[in-house]
Amino acid sequence: MTTVGILHPGAMGATVGAASSAEVIWCPAGRSDASVARAESAGLQPVDSLGDLVERSEVIVSVCPPASAADVADDVAATGFDGVYVDANAIAPATARGIAARFERFVDGGIVGPPAHQAGTTRLYLSGLAADDVATLWDGSVLDARVIDGGAGAASALKMAFATWTKVSSALLLDVRALARAEGVEDALLAEWAISMPDTAERSERTAAGVGPKAWRFVGEMEQMVRAFADAGLPDGFSKGAADLYERLASFKDADGVTLDAVLAALLDSAG
Amino acid sequence: MTTVGILHPGAMGATVGAASSAEVIWCPAGRSDASVARAESAGLQPVDSLGDLVERSEVIVSVCPPASAADVADDVAATGFDGVYVDANAIAPATARGIAARFERFVDGGIVGPPAHQAGTTRLYLSGLAADDVATLWDGSVLDARVIDGGAGAASALKMAFATWTKVSSALLLDVRALARAEGVEDALLAEWAISMPDTAERSERTAAGVGPKAWRFVGEMEQMVRAFADAGLPDGFSKGAADLYERLASFKDADGVTLDAVLAALLDSAG
Repeated sequence: MTTVGILHPGAMGATVGAASSAEVIWCPAGRSDASVARAESAGLQPVDSLGDLVERSEVIVSVCPPASAADVADDVAATGFDGVYVDANAIAPATARGIAARFERFVDGGIVGPPAHQAGTTRLYLSGLAADDVATLWDGSVLDARVIDGGAGAASALKMAFATWTKVSSALLLDVRALARAEGVEDALLAEWAISMPDTAERSERTAAGVGPKAWRFVGEMEQMVRAFADAGLPDGFSKGAADLYERLASFKDADGVTLDAVLAALLDSAG
Repeated sequence: MTTVGILHPGAMGATVGAASSAEVIWCPAGRSDASVARAESAGLQPVDSLGDLVERSEVIVSVCPPASAADVADDVAATGFDGVYVDANAIAPATARGIAARFERFVDGGIVGPPAHQAGTTRLYLSGLAADDVATLWDGSVLDARVIDGGAGAASALKMAFATWTKVSSALLLDVRALARAEGVEDALLAEWAISMPDTAERSERTAAGVGPKAWRFVGEMEQMVRAFADAGLPDGFSKGAADLYERLASFKDADGVTLDAVLAALLDSAG
């Protein structure tokens, strides 16, 4: 049986581990109580240290905030790990290729969808030489592991493209409502939307509730998008705007019941 | 009967003029053959000069590219025009208030929808002291003139908020497809969209065909959006990105049959 080490399972990573047919280990040292509770209920096996995890793992999967991806990879590379390193984070293709260069065997990954609690919601895209082997670790599970062409960077590029459309447009919608409120024309905007774009008002409310609690960790992802677009020579302002907006919402970290009013107040309070 | 002067009717302005119950005059001097043909078929009456137009008009309505709005207003203000000046352009609230300061009687306007060829598609929002009187010029017409609260700047703010959501998100979608193509993961992105966001691929094709020919004039509108968000102290990166993107598509001006492939090629060819 293959042993897979996961660094550092949060809400998403715990389900990635739980879905695998492998023995899945993780390292609770320094992790939050919430992470420990999630990993335990997902059936992940704890080990004492990163050294233990590296020694026992044939495959290591990194699922962490984008801003930490390079550091996590550095820590593992420094141990001389000679298994397959899978970076499944939301990072720029160039960031993924930089991480790839630190390992003899590297598989690039990108996750689309929510934490994988049921089949059909979540896909783990994989690219690179050992991607086919890695994908089999989730055969027949609720996590749909799919191999795509293109080597290191491809799965990350796919994730960046997909998430730019969803997360940057969410940020844009909140920015638009904030402008309307700042200028005193929000009722008029809602009336126009009711005529010409009927779902938009409700979408903006849903967006505020959905992204508010996660905005703090979207900032690092937006910075990876800026890099992805800039590296490709394409306009990168969209994700800069989104990074700016999500940064202003960082104080809603993991909060319950975030409302559109609270989000707009935070955006307008932080207005220069 | 009221006489309304229109400066400078294009596809939109010709329908704004045609829809009014007033006598509508315009000044063909220096306008393109296409503009002349449109104004004629819309039944607008030509006058010889801006001086003639100003002298005969009780109301002047400016419908022009956003980057020209201030210059057009300056030209009219320089004549000493003492009627009602209506700026119906897609400009920042501060730009509108700057124009307002040049006239004794000013109404702010913002048009939402396509050229008004039939009822129900297009609204002319108006704000400011004389807005109610101006709105009556389109009573019972295909152009739905609506008065909103807030004085000079309100109608412009509404237009900016509405158009930021539609035009910046259109630009974002094209940027995303360009990234996927640049990184060789376009097929994978389309496959993911087919699962999770079924209309998105088709929307991106429609967007390319729709915005390609108009991109050249969207640039000035995006610059007004940058100003609107910056003035409100809100993130302005989104519209900077869109200005950058539309600028790269300026060569499709008024072209027929613009394809997604052609748009992506233009974006990637101009990639630094």
